[in-house]
Amino acid sequence: MDTISNRLLGALLLSMVAPILSAGLMPLPLKYVAAPGKLIIDSNFRIVTTSVGDARMEAAFVRATGRISRQTGIPIYNRGGKPTLVVSCKESGPEYPALGEDESYTLDIASDGAKLNASTVTGALRGLETFIQLISPESNTFYLPGAHIEDRPRFPWRGLMLDVSRHWMSVPVIERNLDAMAAVKLNVFHWHLSDDQGFRVESKRFPKLHQLGSDGKFYTQAQVRDVVNYARDRGIRVIPEFDIPGHTTSWFAGYPELASAPGPYTIERKWGVFQPTLDPAREETYTFIDEFLAEMTGLFPDRFFHIGGDEVDDAQWKTSNSIQTFERENHLAGSVALHAYFNRRLQDMMKKHGKTMVGWDEILAPGLAKDTVIQSWRGQASLADAGSKGYRGILSFGYYLDHLKPASFHYAVDPDPQQTAQILGGEACMWTEYVSEETVDSRIWPRAAAIAERLWSAASVNDADSMYQRLEAVSRQLQWVGIQHRSNYQPMLDRLRGDAPPEPLRVLADASEALGIEGRRDIHKYTSQVLLNRFVDAVRPESEGVRQMEIAVRKLIADPSRDSAEIQVRLTEWSKNDDLLRPSGYLGPISRNLAALGSVGLQALEYLRSGHAPPEGWVAGQIQSMDRMQDPQVEVRLAAVRPVRQLLQALADRRNTSND
Amino acid sequence: MDTISNRLLGALLLSMVAPILSAGLMPLPLKYVAAPGKLIIDSNFRIVTTSVGDARMEAAFVRATGRISRQTGIPIYNRGGKPTLVVSCKESGPEYPALGEDESYTLDIASDGAKLNASTVTGALRGLETFIQLISPESNTFYLPGAHIEDRPRFPWRGLMLDVSRHWMSVPVIERNLDAMAAVKLNVFHWHLSDDQGFRVESKRFPKLHQLGSDGKFYTQAQVRDVVNYARDRGIRVIPEFDIPGHTTSWFAGYPELASAPGPYTIERKWGVFQPTLDPAREETYTFIDEFLAEMTGLFPDRFFHIGGDEVDDAQWKTSNSIQTFERENHLAGSVALHAYFNRRLQDMMKKHGKTMVGWDEILAPGLAKDTVIQSWRGQASLADAGSKGYRGILSFGYYLDHLKPASFHYAVDPDPQQTAQILGGEACMWTEYVSEETVDSRIWPRAAAIAERLWSAASVNDADSMYQRLEAVSRQLQWVGIQHRSNYQPMLDRLRGDAPPEPLRVLADASEALGIEGRRDIHKYTSQVLLNRFVDAVRPESEGVRQMEIAVRKLIADPSRDSAEIQVRLTEWSKNDDLLRPSGYLGPISRNLAALGSVGLQALEYLRSGHAPPEGWVAGQIQSMDRMQDPQVEVRLAAVRPVRQLLQALADRRNTSND
Repeated sequence: MDTISNRLLGALLLSMVAPILSAGLMPLPLKYVAAPGKLIIDSNFRIVTTSVGDARMEAAFVRATGRISRQTGIPIYNRGGKPTLVVSCKESGPEYPALGEDESYTLDIASDGAKLNASTVTGALRGLETFIQLISPESNTFYLPGAHIEDRPRFPWRGLMLDVSRHWMSVPVIERNLDAMAAVKLNVFHWHLSDDQGFRVESKRFPKLHQLGSDGKFYTQAQVRDVVNYARDRGIRVIPEFDIPGHTTSWFAGYPELASAPGPYTIERKWGVFQPTLDPAREETYTFIDEFLAEMTGLFPDRFFHIGGDEVDDAQWKTSNSIQTFERENHLAGSVALHAYFNRRLQDMMKKHGKTMVGWDEILAPGLAKDTVIQSWRGQASLADAGSKGYRGILSFGYYLDHLKPASFHYAVDPDPQQTAQILGGEACMWTEYVSEETVDSRIWPRAAAIAERLWSAASVNDADSMYQRLEAVSRQLQWVGIQHRSNYQPMLDRLRGDAPPEPLRVLADASEALGIEGRRDIHKYTSQVLLNRFVDAVRPESEGVRQMEIAVRKLIADPSRDSAEIQVRLTEWSKNDDLLRPSGYLGPISRNLAALGSVGLQALEYLRSGHAPPEGWVAGQIQSMDRMQDPQVEVRLAAVRPVRQLLQALADRRNTSND
Repeated sequence: MDTISNRLLGALLLSMVAPILSAGLMPLPLKYVAAPGKLIIDSNFRIVTTSVGDARMEAAFVRATGRISRQTGIPIYNRGGKPTLVVSCKESGPEYPALGEDESYTLDIASDGAKLNASTVTGALRGLETFIQLISPESNTFYLPGAHIEDRPRFPWRGLMLDVSRHWMSVPVIERNLDAMAAVKLNVFHWHLSDDQGFRVESKRFPKLHQLGSDGKFYTQAQVRDVVNYARDRGIRVIPEFDIPGHTTSWFAGYPELASAPGPYTIERKWGVFQPTLDPAREETYTFIDEFLAEMTGLFPDRFFHIGGDEVDDAQWKTSNSIQTFERENHLAGSVALHAYFNRRLQDMMKKHGKTMVGWDEILAPGLAKDTVIQSWRGQASLADAGSKGYRGILSFGYYLDHLKPASFHYAVDPDPQQTAQILGGEACMWTEYVSEETVDSRIWPRAAAIAERLWSAASVNDADSMYQRLEAVSRQLQWVGIQHRSNYQPMLDRLRGDAPPEPLRVLADASEALGIEGRRDIHKYTSQVLLNRFVDAVRPESEGVRQMEIAVRKLIADPSRDSAEIQVRLTEWSKNDDLLRPSGYLGPISRNLAALGSVGLQALEYLRSGHAPPEGWVAGQIQSMDRMQDPQVEVRLAAVRPVRQLLQALADRRNTSND
């Protein structure tokens, strides 16, 4: 067996590697070579290690066995016997995963067993996930195809940021998302723990932080330790973020004296950027932060610690006499310089507490220590600027999951198109203004898996069609990991129907795509107490059904003699759905639009297949109506517009061609 | 507001009570009167009680609040303020629920709040479930319609039997099913704890029972106590069954000396009735059973205790010299008399341990104490026979869920058509030869809710269409209770598809119905170790989609000028599904049959609507092909045959009419 070089991989995807693509492998490995044979999975499945016993490894085997059992429906008895998978690991590595550790592995699968070799436990964990992803059904059995795999990540920092301030996320939510991160080889959990709307960690030193800043929704320190260890067991680092000096209203509910303007303060209930900001002119502020960091850095073993630093509104600073005086006395030329001063003081504390600082773009200023890591929400240019000044960076611009953009959008964003070597990787960001514990899984998954592939796999792995095909398979696999993005969908729709048959609402939801934060923030006066139990909250960010429809329409346009039954069935269903749904109130207009789309689509299909010309102006008129119908309604867009527009455009193109 | 008498209720169902039917109320209450106003459910929802604090009541309020929050997606803050629901309860009643306790309640719902009055905590629990079932969605809010309700059960014994021997059911499975039982007002959990294939309770006195008889799958005594208390909190009695003297192979794995023939014995892996039987001729057997019962009766506080007694195979008895000698010496004329002797000895022990004996039909014999309760798997005649001899009875014949019959079949079975007054009620039975922890919810629910209505509501409540409409609503509500019958459906199908799009397999599954034990037992050589992860295991016992289709076809036949788009869409989908599914292997034939059905249905629809006569012999030929297609394949039946047959029959009828 020859190995496939990384550069050749793309070209080979559609030929010999095709069977593997179908297995839901994501991220794609660096090298994959098909090999003869099949490894059958049955009740005698067994993993063993030849290496020195490591508790993390043993726990991983138990988890892997449980997941394989759920995924296949095969009870696994652990009765001994010949091992199915032998894992060898050179060293167990440090107690907690760390930036830059060796995550490489090789995996060989043959009929008589599989071998997984890695330098570290973390590498073995990564290979174990590949092994599970390769399990495929076949008639009445499950198997892995024979293969030789060599794999390691492109970037060492592959993260998911989760905001637990805007909406509370309990420990089970965190844990199941850590499991899903591990499944797609993400290795940094960035925990956005404080913001204007909530301070979410128990502080023994300053208990009014969580007592008055959280509505009772906070993690105890024991829970924090549990989460950190849960992540460690899965090869995931935990980076806490306490966002200062802005985004701090919730801190001031308990400690108003920290603010730059007099209190009292209460937890912020609205969304946006707010004025309350730490007072950088009082020495007591630094004493507080130092003692606070002394406590919090002890909870989080990772070398890196995130201090936020974004979106500092300087209104309080500008109107405070004492702060203005402080600026003058310290020769600080305005708010930016004051923020930089604050960060330098922070940096000294960080060093004292043995941590390396991470912050958002805005912390970049003269005097910032060179080991600081810049996380960019502003873009590659901002990151390149930081890089040119010697700072390491991680990209989040382009990976904002809360915008609910298509997976292909995120997939096309490369963290390091210029190969600057200063880029550590990237982080998908899940801000939770419009996301609850019930909906968060569907807003992160499966799209975050596409970002995970971007960060792990070679830059040349960039075929969106292949990505989508595998993404759907991964999406289904994530059910067995415990992610609720699929299982919560129908019940959230059922809830809105009461006694009425739920299918028509599902047809409408399947044809729709939820708008992200940019589409929601201006429409309603949302607060943290507005319910997220409506149609938009159930609807997915991206419609797989419509994507399949677009593919079918594309094929039909290329060959109008093809069987179009699949398209016809769906269009007919759309055209009749309003009669079945009979929606009351706010869903009426969008439901009628879907029916109209179905009818127009059926007519267009008929013209396309018959070759008859539509009446003069019909196509142009319908294309105009598509423009209207794609306007968002009830905070969703009707994705069904796209394939119907494709059909109309094909008619328009044909007309143009025949007129030539 | 006048009240509606029970006798009038049936007639009123389709008129003034119609709105309530749609609310998923099941079982229907004895009296329901619509009242003005609506009670809105929002984040300020609050339940209080005017009665003396009762821990069960308080716990029920917490559970109800949590479920309402899940069901509506509304966070409930418990901040105090005006109560939404005030519960008054005359007395807290005994510590554990008991046969015949007062379960009545009244519930009044108005715009400014609801009042629930009951004599006992159990009655209040029943009313609380009615309250939750009445919550309905409306545009962006949830509400209960104004109403006055008076309610109490027809029968005091409304049970679900669950076999945990053939397939192990862990505590979470038991607990979520107890929650679902409470939701539909079932009040007896009959726990079938031992059988040939497993002995499932820890015995401290005879530890080899669970150590050698369970493959490690047993409940600790602490778990048993937890389950009993969990049930008590929901107003559910727990009746254990240890099935003796037959069905005891698993006992003999540890204690072969108890058997009527020499050992050794191992846990039975096959299904059926087996020969190993307790030796009723040895006094040591009675000593053992007495000590065993001394231990087990202490674990279960209910007055009633089930000793099985069914299907005693007397082969070992007939070939044992010592047993034959014993029969002669004790003037016992054969096996039936010997079994009766054994039961009389058992009964003495029961009395000593303060229990009343329950057993299956076969224990009925001269000399049986008159307080014994007979559970009938043989039918109403058997029960009437027992009743005529003065024994109380509970019906299970007709309620065997493992036969996977339609809900309407069970619904039509009345436990006491002759009003004999000896009938305590009935029990749905879930035997688990072909049921795993993953599939058990879908085999019990929602059909058991129809049996629950039969046992609670008046005999006159017997309209199957109304039942089905409400059953579907209850089925969706049970998701919020935690039942996985809906959430496990798609993942179990996904599992079989791997990377391939799962929708076409769902179309096939939606058009199919799984066969019950009678359809599976002869086809494969099943054992307890055969996997239950195939198509048949995912498929539901009853297709709601096909039922809806049958209704639509019935309406179309009555008025062929109606819009038939819904029928056309479904038939087209069926006709094209095989092309999309491209099933490998065993699903090929049934998938092609569905496609054929779709095509025939479309043709029949066209003939019906156009009024054109089909060619001579076409209808008769197609009806014959329906007969072939309804033969089970891959252990499912193609439910889709039914509406297509309806269409064909309508054509045949038209032809006959026009020939007159």
